[in-house]
Amino acid sequence: MWGGRFAEGPSAIMREINASIPFDKALWRQDIAGSRAHVAMLAQQEIVSTEDAEAIDGGLQTIAAEYERDGVPEDWDLEDIHMTVEARLTELVGPVAGRLHTARSRNDQVATDFKLWTRDAMDRALDGIAALQRALVDRAGEHAASVMPGFTHLQTAQPVTLGHHLLAYYEMLRRDSARFSAAQERLNECPLGAAALAGTGFDLDRDMTATALGFDRPTANSLDTVSDRDFALDYLNAASQCALHLSRLAEELILWASQPFGFVRLPDSLSTGSSIMPQKKNPDAAELVRGHAGRIIGCTTALMVTMKGLPLAYSKDMQDDKPPVFEAAGLLDLCLAAMQGMIAGADFNTDRMRNAAGLGHATATDLADWLVRAADIPFREAHHITGAAVKLADSKGCTLEDLSLEDLQGIDSRLDDRVRAVLTLDASVAARRSYGGTAPDQVQARAREARQALGMED
Amino acid sequence: MWGGRFAEGPSAIMREINASIPFDKALWRQDIAGSRAHVAMLAQQEIVSTEDAEAIDGGLQTIAAEYERDGVPEDWDLEDIHMTVEARLTELVGPVAGRLHTARSRNDQVATDFKLWTRDAMDRALDGIAALQRALVDRAGEHAASVMPGFTHLQTAQPVTLGHHLLAYYEMLRRDSARFSAAQERLNECPLGAAALAGTGFDLDRDMTATALGFDRPTANSLDTVSDRDFALDYLNAASQCALHLSRLAEELILWASQPFGFVRLPDSLSTGSSIMPQKKNPDAAELVRGHAGRIIGCTTALMVTMKGLPLAYSKDMQDDKPPVFEAAGLLDLCLAAMQGMIAGADFNTDRMRNAAGLGHATATDLADWLVRAADIPFREAHHITGAAVKLADSKGCTLEDLSLEDLQGIDSRLDDRVRAVLTLDASVAARRSYGGTAPDQVQARAREARQALGMED
Amino acid sequence: MWGGRFAEGPSAIMREINASIPFDKALWRQDIAGSRAHVAMLAQQEIVSTEDAEAIDGGLQTIAAEYERDGVPEDWDLEDIHMTVEARLTELVGPVAGRLHTARSRNDQVATDFKLWTRDAMDRALDGIAALQRALVDRAGEHAASVMPGFTHLQTAQPVTLGHHLLAYYEMLRRDSARFSAAQERLNECPLGAAALAGTGFDLDRDMTATALGFDRPTANSLDTVSDRDFALDYLNAASQCALHLSRLAEELILWASQPFGFVRLPDSLSTGSSIMPQKKNPDAAELVRGHAGRIIGCTTALMVTMKGLPLAYSKDMQDDKPPVFEAAGLLDLCLAAMQGMIAGADFNTDRMRNAAGLGHATATDLADWLVRAADIPFREAHHITGAAVKLADSKGCTLEDLSLEDLQGIDSRLDDRVRAVLTLDASVAARRSYGGTAPDQVQARAREARQALGMED
Amino acid sequence: MWGGRFAEGPSAIMREINASIPFDKALWRQDIAGSRAHVAMLAQQEIVSTEDAEAIDGGLQTIAAEYERDGVPEDWDLEDIHMTVEARLTELVGPVAGRLHTARSRNDQVATDFKLWTRDAMDRALDGIAALQRALVDRAGEHAASVMPGFTHLQTAQPVTLGHHLLAYYEMLRRDSARFSAAQERLNECPLGAAALAGTGFDLDRDMTATALGFDRPTANSLDTVSDRDFALDYLNAASQCALHLSRLAEELILWASQPFGFVRLPDSLSTGSSIMPQKKNPDAAELVRGHAGRIIGCTTALMVTMKGLPLAYSKDMQDDKPPVFEAAGLLDLCLAAMQGMIAGADFNTDRMRNAAGLGHATATDLADWLVRAADIPFREAHHITGAAVKLADSKGCTLEDLSLEDLQGIDSRLDDRVRAVLTLDASVAARRSYGGTAPDQVQARAREARQALGMED
Repeated sequence: MWGGRFAEGPSAIMREINASIPFDKALWRQDIAGSRAHVAMLAQQEIVSTEDAEAIDGGLQTIAAEYERDGVPEDWDLEDIHMTVEARLTELVGPVAGRLHTARSRNDQVATDFKLWTRDAMDRALDGIAALQRALVDRAGEHAASVMPGFTHLQTAQPVTLGHHLLAYYEMLRRDSARFSAAQERLNECPLGAAALAGTGFDLDRDMTATALGFDRPTANSLDTVSDRDFALDYLNAASQCALHLSRLAEELILWASQPFGFVRLPDSLSTGSSIMPQKKNPDAAELVRGHAGRIIGCTTALMVTMKGLPLAYSKDMQDDKPPVFEAAGLLDLCLAAMQGMIAGADFNTDRMRNAAGLGHATATDLADWLVRAADIPFREAHHITGAAVKLADSKGCTLEDLSLEDLQGIDSRLDDRVRAVLTLDASVAARRSYGGTAPDQVQARAREARQALGMED
Repeated sequence: MWGGRFAEGPSAIMREINASIPFDKALWRQDIAGSRAHVAMLAQQEIVSTEDAEAIDGGLQTIAAEYERDGVPEDWDLEDIHMTVEARLTELVGPVAGRLHTARSRNDQVATDFKLWTRDAMDRALDGIAALQRALVDRAGEHAASVMPGFTHLQTAQPVTLGHHLLAYYEMLRRDSARFSAAQERLNECPLGAAALAGTGFDLDRDMTATALGFDRPTANSLDTVSDRDFALDYLNAASQCALHLSRLAEELILWASQPFGFVRLPDSLSTGSSIMPQKKNPDAAELVRGHAGRIIGCTTALMVTMKGLPLAYSKDMQDDKPPVFEAAGLLDLCLAAMQGMIAGADFNTDRMRNAAGLGHATATDLADWLVRAADIPFREAHHITGAAVKLADSKGCTLEDLSLEDLQGIDSRLDDRVRAVLTLDASVAARRSYGGTAPDQVQARAREARQALGMED
Repeated sequence: MWGGRFAEGPSAIMREINASIPFDKALWRQDIAGSRAHVAMLAQQEIVSTEDAEAIDGGLQTIAAEYERDGVPEDWDLEDIHMTVEARLTELVGPVAGRLHTARSRNDQVATDFKLWTRDAMDRALDGIAALQRALVDRAGEHAASVMPGFTHLQTAQPVTLGHHLLAYYEMLRRDSARFSAAQERLNECPLGAAALAGTGFDLDRDMTATALGFDRPTANSLDTVSDRDFALDYLNAASQCALHLSRLAEELILWASQPFGFVRLPDSLSTGSSIMPQKKNPDAAELVRGHAGRIIGCTTALMVTMKGLPLAYSKDMQDDKPPVFEAAGLLDLCLAAMQGMIAGADFNTDRMRNAAGLGHATATDLADWLVRAADIPFREAHHITGAAVKLADSKGCTLEDLSLEDLQGIDSRLDDRVRAVLTLDASVAARRSYGGTAPDQVQARAREARQALGMED
Repeated sequence: MWGGRFAEGPSAIMREINASIPFDKALWRQDIAGSRAHVAMLAQQEIVSTEDAEAIDGGLQTIAAEYERDGVPEDWDLEDIHMTVEARLTELVGPVAGRLHTARSRNDQVATDFKLWTRDAMDRALDGIAALQRALVDRAGEHAASVMPGFTHLQTAQPVTLGHHLLAYYEMLRRDSARFSAAQERLNECPLGAAALAGTGFDLDRDMTATALGFDRPTANSLDTVSDRDFALDYLNAASQCALHLSRLAEELILWASQPFGFVRLPDSLSTGSSIMPQKKNPDAAELVRGHAGRIIGCTTALMVTMKGLPLAYSKDMQDDKPPVFEAAGLLDLCLAAMQGMIAGADFNTDRMRNAAGLGHATATDLADWLVRAADIPFREAHHITGAAVKLADSKGCTLEDLSLEDLQGIDSRLDDRVRAVLTLDASVAARRSYGGTAPDQVQARAREARQALGMED
């Protein structure tokens, strides 16, 4: 009758579809902190007596100690973390526990708990990002002059330095950091006091609870307060963008670790081997970072879809806000840590990188630029001449710098021996000294600035 | 150093990011069934001896009994369900356990397990859909002649019958059923024997294992076999579309249960009340069905994103295939069951429905159609005349059927008293007897066909 | 051979899949502005002569005038807007045009163009948001004391004021505004000078071009510069969240405009009628706002998926960045304007709202709160007493305030006549004076602050 | 006032947000075909006279000829393709045109048009898939014995044949084909006659119009008919999955075309070059296929989100159904054709593939399998022995087959000279003759079956 699965009929289904305690117990610390702030304010405002408030506060502290020690009991009949705590409080302090819920509702309570949790998750993301940035900047300083092929379209384009490449990810993470920080600012208004949806007639001091919980101010509209999940979407959007960056880095590590590239050996501790092919080291952690990015994007889609088109104020659909955020946060924390381990422990094969950079006439652009500078030829024409030089080198099976003076002048009389000096890999990267360019001294300068921004010792 | 969370460094991170046993233990039945089929085939092909095969099969049966009784132990060092089972098998039967993995790899093993699990999930979906269809058809038969407003743009448009409205969802679910069935057919090729990626040199009988596990045939390309997750995406896409339908129905129940509509009282067992407002009955289950649709869509996005652009053959990203499918399947099962309970137990207020249908000149189209039929006026002109009649009725504050003969003929001389008969709610719905229309006899006929298709007693 | 559609073989397909001019011609203003800034800098740095720079600049101005007058020609052989402009420049000024591309590449050029375009789109969004906020605040001031039912779970919960409800959307839009502003800050670094991927050996003044184009500074890493589309994702994420808010408001307008609610008549100019049912006014614009939210979310998903896992530096996949941003921006502009028109022109039926608020014992919470305040009863117990009162009123078919003194004291002796005063709709909303609550004076105060923040005359 | 963009106020906004003619004019052929079928049926049923029907049909044919020649005029005041056609019809045949809309509404009309268009798009997809399959099968036959490295985790795992690899995509596309075909079956019920939402009182022959338009039968529920967009979602889901497969193949071509791999040269006609680096050939078409997959997934998300939670029957949100389907179909057609061109024209470098397959002891599994077969050692123990052999070969810097007899027997006395024969690349692939394995004769057999299934000459 119930599709085979729910033998006991509607009530069993309702228990299962309705109970949020299996996941919202993760909010227990925030729930107790919020209740303690609320009851202290009720006492100050003389809405509950000091004695009652003390009894309640003591009970809440006892519960916190219990949960810390034993975990949160999962009783579906108590539905959610709020009722679970309140039921235990009643056992501990008796009917006075019923005064805690004065001038409050589960709607503002859950908004407060979830905001506090999300704010913490943003802090963890910011820490994880900074740790990864430090690893990137360390390795970038080490490899400021290590030459590797720079790719566009995954085709060898121009030589760059490995340090420069790693700092590109420092920049992406810098924006991720800014994104989480801006989201924290938007989040930081306290829901407590919005009550069910309309505010309350009790004479609350909403500034007091806001301050106690580290918020900048109370929220300004009670209907919005209980209907709003922008902060959760902000977390998910920032996490998605950060995960995209990590996925790009993971993609590169996987490519670089493949036999045809051979640019890197990843740390054993973040790879899996194979009992049969001891030389085989699978970049599992990198692949999982890439895979987790997909799941984090899926979490974001889920909450977008759920919120789209809900009328005010609270709707039960919004109970589906937590699973995607909890899942995404767990995955992002793990991805950041795994990536930091991979970057810190990567064993770069700079010889293979340099060799690969030498293929494909990667310094052809340097020849064209020389023509512009030395012979004042419009760039488009210089391009054309360079094309002829590359074609000749190809037909001779040599590199551009191996072409003889006759060869060069046969192509264009304005070419002379000086050009050869610009065609080496080292000359090519050293030349690109425009701000933000790949030249080793640019990379060192940018790395120094990054160390400073991250508070790293120089 | 590890972003604060991973005190023990890379190995701890790797354990956490790499272990799939926390979720893939759900596959234990499928894993053991697959291994039993595999070892029976190895014995028939004389790749392992009959005694060894018997020992292994006995051990697998013992493990199944243990897991059934005690659950699956979650040892992260054993990584996944495959190693968990094999490790226990080795404890039970000794080194001979090592013969089980002959001509097999985790890559074809996990594809087999996951296909079997997904096939079962599709069966559950098909059952849940049929159960909900039966509820809809039952209630439709009951309300084949109950008049309610038909809306377009959520504006009252024309009267329809409640039975007709409910059968619209029967149709949607019929397509959902067809979608899951077609997906099962595409899925039903057995991966076992594809080995790691290239097939194997052992003389397997892949048809034997395919048959033993209920597949139609073995897969035809070993590289595709270990790289393919189409069946999981097929499940997710079918689940998403089904969830969209359930979400539409949930949206309607929520609207209908609101005070301004007042069309339905949902069963107590699938609602929550409020200790303070006993008259208040929140349609929680319906809201959660709507919310879960968002999460199921998010799961689909997640796996799409993860699979997009992976080179052949197996990549570890594909380990992220299971969480979204497991989550979506759990949610869909619950939504189908909850919706069946709501439909079966809904207390429709047909009086309020009928009253609402009487508002807004819902039978104006019937007037226009009458003009076409009785006076052979082109439809566009008939529309125009009807507009004038509605305007007059509005100015008089009466309904169309209350207009006097003079009123009607003042508008157009071709109107006469006969028209009044077509303007009642009952006449309006009774008239729409085109195949699939809202007329009660059409609804009864369609409901009878549906009962037959569902194998319900008539 | 080509699937029936591409008669001319690969080249025809390549032209069609490769050409971006059909959509990137929207960037022409930005492309010309960027080129003018670039050539002025090249002249200052003496990389091109003043005369050449003047010729090029004059040519660019001519092209701008042509495009302004005639539109941008769409020649697929020229592929994109950059080549289209350069080809025309060559026609106008001859080979000197070839000097413009010195120390530049299409990779940094397109990043610059697209950032400039996106920055403008963010400005448009900010303007559109502010205009809608002004409309909301105006109507909120007008309806600070208009009582309507506040819903949770779409069930009547407590009375609120319409002004309070409208200001909830002001708050959402305030966060949207902050989101676009923060995104603009992150965006505002100039890509010019990153060249193909590695920077350049020419002695550029990147600060000069950055300043000329209104950027705060040049980007700090050339590889990141040409690989980065964070700004486009930032736009899309902010647009998605804003669209979600608009979709929620649209959902409410559609509900409110339905016959069973009857809370609002939307302006004729933003509705469609029906020639046959003149009373029928379809809320098309609101429905399209809701529908467009879906498409904007789809655009966001598209770019997320496309960027996920791309190695550095530029890949051609990134050409698929523009269609979703252009589409989303067009839709968002339209949604904001349509919503402003609907809010400004909505004809609210405050009588029906007030009547609806009177249903369902919406002031029951006020009774419970009175018990807590007047009789010092713990809230949970007060809830219980209130439940009994509601049940009695229901059985008598009257409202709470209609219960007699005997009735009240039969329930709990601490209830007395004073309670009746708190049970009216007006008393209920007036009581909720906590900061951000629904009381008319709170609404007026918040509206005044909003007017100030928006720079509106008071 | 209107956010700066809409100078003319609400009416201008409404015109822009409401008009669908800019995109739905793509439906003109379907709209005219549907109208012709409808009027022929009206005539047969004597609802309109034969003369009127003939006049209308003649007018519709004239319009079709006009549109074929001149395109569809885009007059926003006529809103959509249906009104555009009807308005022109009225010009051509006078008021009798008004009889065409008898017993029909825009709601069933647009559902019919869009289903017809989508059915055609599915046909195009099926053709494009078959064309690509033919190219794959041709190249697979050519390279049934060309050895290349098989990768897992992008690490060299075991040698496979290129033909086997290409046939993996044949299999994926076979499932795509089945998916489109199943979707066509579900789609193939005719909406005409459902009218606005409730059916009609005219005595229609819905079977006649269904047959005339190639549908299997009329739809069975008029409310469902005008509310249903399953067929569009089915197209999008099938297109997404197909695009994922194409994106995987594109990813591989891009990898294979990179200098470190060097496995393939893509056809010039589907690549772009660079005037400065003539050797550089960017795999643009492959990158765009990968990018387009992201956009197609975005289109799918868009329509999912839009449909989620809409009450019955037609809502204007559903006007947002067409842009994502039209966009996705255009992109998919292009991707299929481009991929066919790339596969047909790819110049595979089988020498580099074979060399790459020789790296990394790719035949180690063959050694383990030999131990199982020849010495009856449990597979897990055989793995262990093989590991020792690989380690020894590594320490000697030689391949497994270069180990001496003493070396081998020093590891395990059961190893002997016979084993060397199984360790060559050709022996390895030839051995994997299990059904669906990589052995050349398996590949040839599978290719033959595929040719037969595709109706290719043998």
